[in-house]
Amino acid sequence: MTTPSSSPAATHRTRVAVVGGGPAGLMASHLLHRAGIDTVVVDHRTVHEIETTHRAGILETDSVRLLTQTGVYGDGPQRVLTEGDRHGGIHLRFDGASHHLDFERLVGNSVWLYPQTEVFTDLHRARTRDGGDLHYGVSEVGVHDVTGSPRVTFTAADGSRHEVRAEVVVGADGSRSVCRDLVAGHRRWFREYPFAWFGILCEAPKSSPELVYNRSETGFALVSQRTESVQRMYFQCDPAENPDDWSDARIWDELQGRLAGRDGFELIEGPVISRSVLPFRSFVQTPMRHGRLVLAGDAAHTVPPTGAKGLNLALADVRVLAEVLVDALAKDDLDLLDEYTDRALARVWKAQHFSYWMTTMLHRSPGTEGFDDLRQLGELHSLVSSEAGSTYLAEGYTGWPTR
Amino acid sequence: MTTPSSSPAATHRTRVAVVGGGPAGLMASHLLHRAGIDTVVVDHRTVHEIETTHRAGILETDSVRLLTQTGVYGDGPQRVLTEGDRHGGIHLRFDGASHHLDFERLVGNSVWLYPQTEVFTDLHRARTRDGGDLHYGVSEVGVHDVTGSPRVTFTAADGSRHEVRAEVVVGADGSRSVCRDLVAGHRRWFREYPFAWFGILCEAPKSSPELVYNRSETGFALVSQRTESVQRMYFQCDPAENPDDWSDARIWDELQGRLAGRDGFELIEGPVISRSVLPFRSFVQTPMRHGRLVLAGDAAHTVPPTGAKGLNLALADVRVLAEVLVDALAKDDLDLLDEYTDRALARVWKAQHFSYWMTTMLHRSPGTEGFDDLRQLGELHSLVSSEAGSTYLAEGYTGWPTR
Repeated sequence: MTTPSSSPAATHRTRVAVVGGGPAGLMASHLLHRAGIDTVVVDHRTVHEIETTHRAGILETDSVRLLTQTGVYGDGPQRVLTEGDRHGGIHLRFDGASHHLDFERLVGNSVWLYPQTEVFTDLHRARTRDGGDLHYGVSEVGVHDVTGSPRVTFTAADGSRHEVRAEVVVGADGSRSVCRDLVAGHRRWFREYPFAWFGILCEAPKSSPELVYNRSETGFALVSQRTESVQRMYFQCDPAENPDDWSDARIWDELQGRLAGRDGFELIEGPVISRSVLPFRSFVQTPMRHGRLVLAGDAAHTVPPTGAKGLNLALADVRVLAEVLVDALAKDDLDLLDEYTDRALARVWKAQHFSYWMTTMLHRSPGTEGFDDLRQLGELHSLVSSEAGSTYLAEGYTGWPTR
Repeated sequence: MTTPSSSPAATHRTRVAVVGGGPAGLMASHLLHRAGIDTVVVDHRTVHEIETTHRAGILETDSVRLLTQTGVYGDGPQRVLTEGDRHGGIHLRFDGASHHLDFERLVGNSVWLYPQTEVFTDLHRARTRDGGDLHYGVSEVGVHDVTGSPRVTFTAADGSRHEVRAEVVVGADGSRSVCRDLVAGHRRWFREYPFAWFGILCEAPKSSPELVYNRSETGFALVSQRTESVQRMYFQCDPAENPDDWSDARIWDELQGRLAGRDGFELIEGPVISRSVLPFRSFVQTPMRHGRLVLAGDAAHTVPPTGAKGLNLALADVRVLAEVLVDALAKDDLDLLDEYTDRALARVWKAQHFSYWMTTMLHRSPGTEGFDDLRQLGELHSLVSSEAGSTYLAEGYTGWPTR
């Protein structure tokens, strides 16, 4: 919460102020708009910043449904379907060989490769098309009096001061949330992992039509995709790794070493056009409601990237939140919002476990070499040789039904 | 390996010397006898010692089959079926409520409650009935020249010295194996757990017809059974716990606290007639063959008790070993024994993972309170609400098919 400047502020009135204009905040704004509820969205980032920050790329079935069945695309093409790639499964690769998990056969569901930046672009277009009141690139955002008469104050990009008076504030302001600090009596749970992901974008054709989750003696690697000519790949690294220390040649050596095998899999190389180190952390804050403030997405919980649950969990939050919030506003009974925490958290802890499971099954942890390395292979062999085990993983990967 | 005394030794010749006369050693001897292969079995323990040491109590379907389909009971009643209790599933209990996993419905299989001491008694009777050459209560056991002309030397209970010359030695001498040290170039893997089990026998009727695996804020507890009037129960404790510090009242307080709930489950108390602390350890040694020596059961691997894999894994070893050994002896090609290590180890690492999974899903680990506690509940909720997850657990619990 930043102290507002002293210039006179323009006052806006709305029913719901949304702090954070990423996919979670915009989807909340979009769903509320469809229910006839006005919102104002503020974000300190610019649209350009958000559109150019690479994030997750896998959408659960229900996340795709949320985009296609709520009018995001209006009468236009359903971009997630026309531009995204349906992935019917994943490959688990270990001991130098890939094992395909066919989600369509196992659970009758698939996931979609469609980068978070595209989800943002789609939602931003939809909110703009529908006359949404969106404020990006703002500064000095303040959130006030969330247990009384909530106000969100900010300085717009042009320097003007604004105050938004609302009945409810949605805190969808991401992993560096200021909103979450306003929840009195909150509890927070953390889990740190002793590794990170080194992520690259490269100019190359696809090495595999679907994601390859690879466990090797030298650590985890993930082969993923973006387009026909640009690919996204990751490998487990030390959290202190400096991306500048890694030449293209060193990166490809590392990836080739991890993905080497005996089944003819070929990793196709190309110029590395982006490199970064992604932190690994699990975090949950409860409750997700305090007075007239509700949290959604990364503001309330973050998951490690293995299994791609972050964006999906944020969209699942918002799906439940919109339903509960519309009901609470219609009945003028904000205590109904308490249901949101319980319903959202049940999925959050399942997703936290799923992300932990995918992570620990595939990564090397310093200090647990030896026994746990071979136990890990025992688990992977059990899993791919069991229809039930593979189905259990597929259920988690494609996403549980929303209560 | 103990230095033999200098008195002249009676010489025995046999095809296979079996070091260790517990269930694994006796089953090996029994299966080889049925294939027309003579054995001599030696064990430093007395039959009485083995018959009165409480061990595991759950047999996988295939372990029961091994007892009933290989003539252990001859024309007599199949004691495992008449005296044992068929268990169609288990209860996973957490958040104060039990969730039944119905193995018969999930995988068409069940397990049997039949204590290891009874398995030993049955096999000992069978070997005695069939004229087996068994030597219990011996001392100064020595195993020699396992890569050349193997000899097993020992001092019998009556003080006489013996030397057994054999083509092959089976090392089934348990978790304090001397045979395993004879495997040149062995590799060993360990995993220690920061807790142990406090185990009791008590005089009380059954609190539940099937096992209750209970996760609580104060640690794991297991309600198991022995007979209509004697029960076996366990609770997670510090490895340094002294059984003498625990009065009956203190034990029942601890168990009642952990098993308390909101579903009417009632833990029936009674006089505690035995109490002990069971260590928790994972161990694997490879290879399981060296020259003319092969290892089976605890001599090659131990698992923590959660999930009751120890005895079942030993019997699975022996099932594979007998098949490979009969073939190798018939073809006079002991290099065929190498197949034994590969086939046995595939199951060993699955079982190690299964035991680790059941353990970590249900126990509290010091230092991982907080996030991992709630993640654990997330996993348990995922598991019991998923037919596939429940089936995956049931497959492991009832046992994988032997390759």
